[in-house]
Amino acid sequence: MSKTILERRLFGPGPSNPYPEATSALGLPLLGHLDPEFIARMDNVCDGLRVLWGTKNSRTLPLSATGSAGMEAAFVNTINPGDVAVIAINGLFGERMCEVASRVGAEIVRVEHDYGTPIDAERVAAAHPNPKVIAGVHAETSTGVVSDIAALGAIKGDALLITDAVTSIGGMPVLADEWGIDVGYAGTQKCIGVAPGLAPFTISDRAFERRVAKPQSWYLDLGLLGGYATGSTGGKRTYHHTAPVAMVASLEAGLNRIQAEGLEAVTKRHQEAGKALQDGIQEMGLELFAAEGHRLPQLTTVKVPNGVDSAKVRSYLLNRFNIEIGGGVAQYADTVWRIGLMGPNANPASVALILASLKEAIDKA
Amino acid sequence: MSKTILERRLFGPGPSNPYPEATSALGLPLLGHLDPEFIARMDNVCDGLRVLWGTKNSRTLPLSATGSAGMEAAFVNTINPGDVAVIAINGLFGERMCEVASRVGAEIVRVEHDYGTPIDAERVAAAHPNPKVIAGVHAETSTGVVSDIAALGAIKGDALLITDAVTSIGGMPVLADEWGIDVGYAGTQKCIGVAPGLAPFTISDRAFERRVAKPQSWYLDLGLLGGYATGSTGGKRTYHHTAPVAMVASLEAGLNRIQAEGLEAVTKRHQEAGKALQDGIQEMGLELFAAEGHRLPQLTTVKVPNGVDSAKVRSYLLNRFNIEIGGGVAQYADTVWRIGLMGPNANPASVALILASLKEAIDKA
Repeated sequence: MSKTILERRLFGPGPSNPYPEATSALGLPLLGHLDPEFIARMDNVCDGLRVLWGTKNSRTLPLSATGSAGMEAAFVNTINPGDVAVIAINGLFGERMCEVASRVGAEIVRVEHDYGTPIDAERVAAAHPNPKVIAGVHAETSTGVVSDIAALGAIKGDALLITDAVTSIGGMPVLADEWGIDVGYAGTQKCIGVAPGLAPFTISDRAFERRVAKPQSWYLDLGLLGGYATGSTGGKRTYHHTAPVAMVASLEAGLNRIQAEGLEAVTKRHQEAGKALQDGIQEMGLELFAAEGHRLPQLTTVKVPNGVDSAKVRSYLLNRFNIEIGGGVAQYADTVWRIGLMGPNANPASVALILASLKEAIDKA
Repeated sequence: MSKTILERRLFGPGPSNPYPEATSALGLPLLGHLDPEFIARMDNVCDGLRVLWGTKNSRTLPLSATGSAGMEAAFVNTINPGDVAVIAINGLFGERMCEVASRVGAEIVRVEHDYGTPIDAERVAAAHPNPKVIAGVHAETSTGVVSDIAALGAIKGDALLITDAVTSIGGMPVLADEWGIDVGYAGTQKCIGVAPGLAPFTISDRAFERRVAKPQSWYLDLGLLGGYATGSTGGKRTYHHTAPVAMVASLEAGLNRIQAEGLEAVTKRHQEAGKALQDGIQEMGLELFAAEGHRLPQLTTVKVPNGVDSAKVRSYLLNRFNIEIGGGVAQYADTVWRIGLMGPNANPASVALILASLKEAIDKA
């Protein structure tokens, strides 16, 4: 057993601390994955996810793995070898899309943006006349930037639009149907306020009809999964794999928690906490990394001041305050901090605590 | 929220009821996946899994998905398109291996056995002179049969031996190194006594050296995973994906629980409970499905008596006693019951309860 520690405050890019209701539900009596009570629970979860995705898609379900597997599911179910995928890259997760899509045999057209800036839909539109897929990240966890997915939907033409909503879902509006998202994937461990382990996923009828007949992944084959998780085959559930039933119970509780507060109130809470943190950071004389006007409220990126050792500050926060914040990624590993206010952590007390502890850490680390 | 029910007794083929310690650990304060405390926890888990696998393999880790993803990981990391895979089939999970391997482009040589019988190593050896991979299921969850994996190891020659230990691990001896298993995968939700959601996995150095350079799955690429989960790259951990940290904490607690009782005592408990159940079933005048001498103690398969409605009996057990048992699979869906005694459920009280309730259900359903 690891040594006992006080509860960490998870103010990094994720996982966040979960809602207490979500944690408690992990300990509910376990149900078999084919139990009628579990099927009812799964139905509730799929309904709750439709609200968060802003979709009526019947095929909206939690995949039995983490958000990165959601990304893989998006590509293995839409790309046949040689299909063209135009991928917008403005951070690590756009890069990862290219890596995942390349393993499915996609012909990839990269549309690169500076890290810290949002996706430019016009450049994406100009990249290829007739791609099978266009893909972009809604909330780039690596840079703290939000991109306009509706603008990608407006220019997608006949292409399928794949969207990474791992860090946006539950923390800001995601309107899959209105924006024209065909395939979306997310994670539970950020603004939904549940432990990591499931990938909320949605796919439109249009994309499902054009899906890969026999994807290279059996585990993530939506043609097989739909029958089990969403009853979309018209009634009888078919066994595919053993669902992670405890995690599904926790997700149900997290979704109920969000519903009880109201999704609009939850996103407003994220918005206000992020704004207060970003104002406070700038009042301390620090600079933000993400371009103004395109900053995620739930994930703030801060430039590490000259002469300050990023790792020492993070260790100080962890050891003195039990606070986790994140470093940057790739070339910004040591020059950017990532501070998340997600799920239950999106509140004024977290903001006050971060500002006070970060100031001390910079001064004393 | 689903309606409140009493705790189910999960006597089906899995998931089983978890050990209480494993359930409690799900509610431990969440740690970030790169937190030093979490890394220590992951190290403990990998150590504990090595004991259960009977291996010294450095690359022994919990994959971040369920057992079926473990199967996929085994094949995507060993099979290049056109490689020959000799697959022993004596149940549903041998069939599934063929399906998964076909999606990696394997040239599959099927060695079919009657359901209910064990794998015949001589027939496997005779199937192909020089396969890349030989694969078989140790404990067939679909039929209740145990096969002699050491015998497959003895005839494997230059091939890599892939073994499904989903239902055997933690409930009966699994000796990967002694038997010659090169790649093994399992689940947490059977005899380990933890909720489903992770796939304990092990791969030998020999298999790792011969692995696929760039597997078609990024999520299950062991070349990338090893650096994160096991520190096998020699120290520094690299970020791959967000681990399902709550499930890993639960697995640590389950492994600690097994270690505290002693693995030998745990397997003996499974052995005795299974023997008592199978004796009692036969004393009731019912017949067992799995061939004598090859029966799993942790999963008993029973022939549904003539004139008895399998589904009605299972519904009666669920509604009156809160007891779940499983039906059969494939052509045996309605003619076989599967009764599991796994993890904490492997005890004399479970045996007495099953025998009494099954008798009533058959009489009254």
